[in-house]
Amino acid sequence: MAIIRLGLILHGVTGRMGYNQHLVRSICAIRADGGVPLPNGDRIMPDPILVGRNEEKLKSIAKDHGIARVGTDISAALASREDTVFFDAGSTAMRTMLLTQAIEAGKHVYCEKPIADTLDDALMIAQLAARAGVCNGVVQDKLFLPGLLKLRALRDAGFFGRLLSVRGEFGYWVFEGDLQPAQRPSWNYRKRDGGGIILDMLPHWRYVVDNLFGDITAVSCHGATHIHERFDEQGHPYLADADDAAYTTLELNGGAIVQINSSWATRVRRDDLVTFQVDGVLGSAMAGLTRCYTQHRVNTPRPIWNPDIPQTERFSEQWTEVPDTREVQNGFKAQWSDFMRHVVAGTPWSHTLAEGVKGVQLAELAHRSWAERRWIPVPELEV
Amino acid sequence: MAIIRLGLILHGVTGRMGYNQHLVRSICAIRADGGVPLPNGDRIMPDPILVGRNEEKLKSIAKDHGIARVGTDISAALASREDTVFFDAGSTAMRTMLLTQAIEAGKHVYCEKPIADTLDDALMIAQLAARAGVCNGVVQDKLFLPGLLKLRALRDAGFFGRLLSVRGEFGYWVFEGDLQPAQRPSWNYRKRDGGGIILDMLPHWRYVVDNLFGDITAVSCHGATHIHERFDEQGHPYLADADDAAYTTLELNGGAIVQINSSWATRVRRDDLVTFQVDGVLGSAMAGLTRCYTQHRVNTPRPIWNPDIPQTERFSEQWTEVPDTREVQNGFKAQWSDFMRHVVAGTPWSHTLAEGVKGVQLAELAHRSWAERRWIPVPELEV
Amino acid sequence: MAIIRLGLILHGVTGRMGYNQHLVRSICAIRADGGVPLPNGDRIMPDPILVGRNEEKLKSIAKDHGIARVGTDISAALASREDTVFFDAGSTAMRTMLLTQAIEAGKHVYCEKPIADTLDDALMIAQLAARAGVCNGVVQDKLFLPGLLKLRALRDAGFFGRLLSVRGEFGYWVFEGDLQPAQRPSWNYRKRDGGGIILDMLPHWRYVVDNLFGDITAVSCHGATHIHERFDEQGHPYLADADDAAYTTLELNGGAIVQINSSWATRVRRDDLVTFQVDGVLGSAMAGLTRCYTQHRVNTPRPIWNPDIPQTERFSEQWTEVPDTREVQNGFKAQWSDFMRHVVAGTPWSHTLAEGVKGVQLAELAHRSWAERRWIPVPELEV
Amino acid sequence: MAIIRLGLILHGVTGRMGYNQHLVRSICAIRADGGVPLPNGDRIMPDPILVGRNEEKLKSIAKDHGIARVGTDISAALASREDTVFFDAGSTAMRTMLLTQAIEAGKHVYCEKPIADTLDDALMIAQLAARAGVCNGVVQDKLFLPGLLKLRALRDAGFFGRLLSVRGEFGYWVFEGDLQPAQRPSWNYRKRDGGGIILDMLPHWRYVVDNLFGDITAVSCHGATHIHERFDEQGHPYLADADDAAYTTLELNGGAIVQINSSWATRVRRDDLVTFQVDGVLGSAMAGLTRCYTQHRVNTPRPIWNPDIPQTERFSEQWTEVPDTREVQNGFKAQWSDFMRHVVAGTPWSHTLAEGVKGVQLAELAHRSWAERRWIPVPELEV
Repeated sequence: MAIIRLGLILHGVTGRMGYNQHLVRSICAIRADGGVPLPNGDRIMPDPILVGRNEEKLKSIAKDHGIARVGTDISAALASREDTVFFDAGSTAMRTMLLTQAIEAGKHVYCEKPIADTLDDALMIAQLAARAGVCNGVVQDKLFLPGLLKLRALRDAGFFGRLLSVRGEFGYWVFEGDLQPAQRPSWNYRKRDGGGIILDMLPHWRYVVDNLFGDITAVSCHGATHIHERFDEQGHPYLADADDAAYTTLELNGGAIVQINSSWATRVRRDDLVTFQVDGVLGSAMAGLTRCYTQHRVNTPRPIWNPDIPQTERFSEQWTEVPDTREVQNGFKAQWSDFMRHVVAGTPWSHTLAEGVKGVQLAELAHRSWAERRWIPVPELEV
Repeated sequence: MAIIRLGLILHGVTGRMGYNQHLVRSICAIRADGGVPLPNGDRIMPDPILVGRNEEKLKSIAKDHGIARVGTDISAALASREDTVFFDAGSTAMRTMLLTQAIEAGKHVYCEKPIADTLDDALMIAQLAARAGVCNGVVQDKLFLPGLLKLRALRDAGFFGRLLSVRGEFGYWVFEGDLQPAQRPSWNYRKRDGGGIILDMLPHWRYVVDNLFGDITAVSCHGATHIHERFDEQGHPYLADADDAAYTTLELNGGAIVQINSSWATRVRRDDLVTFQVDGVLGSAMAGLTRCYTQHRVNTPRPIWNPDIPQTERFSEQWTEVPDTREVQNGFKAQWSDFMRHVVAGTPWSHTLAEGVKGVQLAELAHRSWAERRWIPVPELEV
Repeated sequence: MAIIRLGLILHGVTGRMGYNQHLVRSICAIRADGGVPLPNGDRIMPDPILVGRNEEKLKSIAKDHGIARVGTDISAALASREDTVFFDAGSTAMRTMLLTQAIEAGKHVYCEKPIADTLDDALMIAQLAARAGVCNGVVQDKLFLPGLLKLRALRDAGFFGRLLSVRGEFGYWVFEGDLQPAQRPSWNYRKRDGGGIILDMLPHWRYVVDNLFGDITAVSCHGATHIHERFDEQGHPYLADADDAAYTTLELNGGAIVQINSSWATRVRRDDLVTFQVDGVLGSAMAGLTRCYTQHRVNTPRPIWNPDIPQTERFSEQWTEVPDTREVQNGFKAQWSDFMRHVVAGTPWSHTLAEGVKGVQLAELAHRSWAERRWIPVPELEV
Repeated sequence: MAIIRLGLILHGVTGRMGYNQHLVRSICAIRADGGVPLPNGDRIMPDPILVGRNEEKLKSIAKDHGIARVGTDISAALASREDTVFFDAGSTAMRTMLLTQAIEAGKHVYCEKPIADTLDDALMIAQLAARAGVCNGVVQDKLFLPGLLKLRALRDAGFFGRLLSVRGEFGYWVFEGDLQPAQRPSWNYRKRDGGGIILDMLPHWRYVVDNLFGDITAVSCHGATHIHERFDEQGHPYLADADDAAYTTLELNGGAIVQINSSWATRVRRDDLVTFQVDGVLGSAMAGLTRCYTQHRVNTPRPIWNPDIPQTERFSEQWTEVPDTREVQNGFKAQWSDFMRHVVAGTPWSHTLAEGVKGVQLAELAHRSWAERRWIPVPELEV
């Protein structure tokens, strides 16, 4: 068994998501595991360098996690031949520039979503990577949620038969910040800072639908700003002008309908913070982040509409849980492992920047649908 | 205490709905109660004549329920001066003609929804009734559901504060008719017979939204026919070409959004066959046919999105039931009682044919939205 | 980021409360945190000197907690220019004298409640501090209890609507000391030693009511000595002649009523050692030290008084918990942090000695109400 | 075994309370049992005549319950020698006049509380009955509540040792009548109609305290009208000017304190609609209508006041239920049986009109305490 070193340039891992999910639960966890196993039994050991502007913070993090290398000069890091992968979880605004620089330096690239602020930039960067022939990828963590993995297994098992419709409900109440501090950063609710739920969530729904349910042919989306005044991290009131809810309907090739509500201004009376109910001719399923329940055609009850007596059927109890039959690891770590195997051993990889472009496309067309108050076709992309 | 006789001409009470809800649970139940009490202590005793084509069936029903009079000649019935109210729960196709005839004969009229097949006919009949000065009304039974009465009380109590959004889910699985008989008539699924869920349900949603949530300014609706082949009452396969699902978004005056899915091709994993989740700044509620649950702003939890561990919060248990604090009677009977009091004593009445027109309007505009793939404004009607 | 040293003279921190809450959980905890953060990012690092009579005990405590300085000469400590804050948690009898000395030495002062034994002394000391222009404060720890913070949030959220009444129950059984040792010091139960529950608890209720419910206009209080013989720390019987229970009713501006029972001779069958039930037109709440439960108007059941069958309603289950939505720290530490920020950076501060005067006033008027067996008006104070 | 007929003149049994509790559950139930057993094995069979103004209603009730005699002329009924007991559950306003008439006609008298509107009338009627030498009584149903019977048994068993204090909480939320109908009659909330909680409940508390806890020496009472606008039986708003809450403290001979809150404007978070917590030196008890729980001195825990961690003790679970060890019958029926035995066989009887006077006295002094804002002594009555 050989240990194959893989040099990674990690940018933007001092933020909450980059630090927790990418650095600690993915890269550090993989190192603690002794690396990523390859089909032939060899193992890839990631060797990261943390790059950013705040050297003190980088050093402190590096020290906490036994990481040897930090740097504040990205160009220098990209120039080094010992590191072949560049990863970015920093702010979206800088992403296009950084990825361009990395690809031009010959690096393989991997990044958080959205891969760019506009469809044009996204296309450009995906084409650049394709022409350069470097491995490339975008984070698609929701695909690795245990609940959605179960939905995929049901689909693969033919459980649904012909797919009819999907109802998605995502959301919860984000505190305004007056009675108690808000649980999300204030920039999410300001237009000028790139906030808005459409830009945040539609890229997720794109790859979830593409991978689990089918090709999207058209989108109808209506955004709303339900809460107009919020209080920021310092307790000061501010105008919340970005969309905090999106009511979206998607048409799939073949006629199935996906209806998804996304909202930061709704209270949760359902199985989980995000749920997908999938109805097919042969059966239905309801999945949350981890759990998934089914009702097969042959188990479907004949409900009685009787306004004169209180409902006695407990509908939720008529569904059957899909058991956990395999160990599930952190989705970010799983995807990092796949990407490293792809880079080192050429194993298959589907989460390319070209896929990332589609997420940006859907968000952009959803905005257009909202503005023009009509369905917008979703054309196939030529990357 | 005086007993005031009220002669009623009942048409279409041999069908399932007309028989169960209007004849048995309303008119017969009122007669058994000793009539409808008036504010002054007098009581109205309905004295019905059942009219229709099948004399034998009418006689059998009349005998079962101690009703003295039946007839097969509507014109003769309308000519009688002792009966002053005409009621129709027959097929929609004949409704315009029958109501016209009744109004021209000077009768007060009351009928099932929709009041006509087209907006033009609906407007015509409402205007005819208005000009004739007769009392007139349309069934709006959902308003009397205990669950929706509780929503109304919550709104009146100011529980929601500013209304943000409503999510409606209506539907259940209507059997295709192969493995077991379907629980709804086959004409509901054939276009040429006036089937389709938009025409059936949108008139309901119109008065529910108008009365509980606010004025509708625009509609976006996407219909679908999910199940293409069904089996009829004789077990023969037929082409189901009417819409069996409708994905509807409504914009209200003031910006609140109502998103309602209606479907006969979905399986039920929720509190009831129809549910409405109402989100307001100060609190939220979820109502089914009879029960209603609330979550106030101050009881709203701070949920944690953690993909690494199974959800431990039981979100449904974080809501509080709205208790039953008054006796609720059958909604059809309650509305019949109100209508009879209106006819005899001039008490207030809001469920007029003019209101019924609005339901037909919304269904028609929803069809147009589906066809043109865009939002359609809902203009105010001049009846 | 600068570290700003703040020299503190701590008196009376060898006693149970002074040691646990003020020294260990406040000052030492703040030092371990790296000081108190200021709005501009700087941090205040408290540098205490412990003063008292028992040098050995002071040294032992200082050693245990890494504190450099102790002293037995208060005058010398007050003369030092490097320490600008004087704090007293010693016996009430010496407080007026010590605070006077400290203020005259130009120190900022902070102390435990009651700030004096009599209203005259309390007024004098507050006026002295005001004239001297020093920062000054009194401990009001109950305001920082999570349960009461939740009540405050409910009030700020408008949950109660118009406030009708508050029922407070404070108390538990203080062992007589014969079967098992008493859990409170014997001086609490002797008049000549300044004991009595009115003097101990009414100052608390004053700031709780002032801050959460409204302005007090009149007090009716009836004290009682329920247990006449107790056993002291040495196991010797003694005459317990101080009041060990107080039955108090307060009238608020606007007519709301606060009824509070305080007792060391009651057994606990309620949610917590102190509970406040708040009834308002729109909703009610019950708070203990940490938890808080609500019942909104719309969730209020219609109870049935039926003496013939056992009560089947479980009333406590009809209430909804107010969730924990923010991190809560020790109240003493939180108030210390606020006071230090106030001293160093002039940030707002409401727990002044003038507020402390009000607590002494209420205790004094409650005693008078008890003696004269009548309601006593509570005049506004001119400090 | 002999059957002894006892002729009863029943007045005011068409009202809710008189009908349900006195006629149906008491007199009719006793008749169905075959009469009231006497110590010697004989049985008293009550033979009622229902008197009142509405003959039709009286006849209908009599028919429903197999009662032979009704009448509308009270004077005639009182003149009859075959009926020796007069009972009144009609309106309080007529009570003095009716009881006077009955006593003067030589009847034994029994009635609902309060026995008169004023202390003077109450004294007069009790003295009249005493001078006439007739058996006389007042309903004191709360004494027969299973929960209070258990308290009495605990007291008789010496469980409490010396009594220290009693806390009573009575009340629940009486709906205003806007969102749902009120559950109590509107006259209860109007001064001019004899409404008010003091007049309604203080007579109850008088006999409960007298019989269970000791002699009352002084009363301090503060009334309040918390809800100013209510909606009556016709849905019309009216000014609610009677007291709907009373905060009462009673001093008992020996120094024990009874503190009772009575309110129609509070929400219920306790064991029952009325609860009494009794604290004694040796033990405490908490009783509701039916259940009763105790905590003995030796089972009393040492609670910990720790504001830093949520309360983990579940205080209610530290109490022990008093089991049901004897069959309990309806209290009204039990008292009726005692009264009939007293009339026929001279068995002991303590619920005399002289006791009823005390209830009126306490209500009157409570009103005075409220008006004069001071404690009012409760003198012994000389009847």
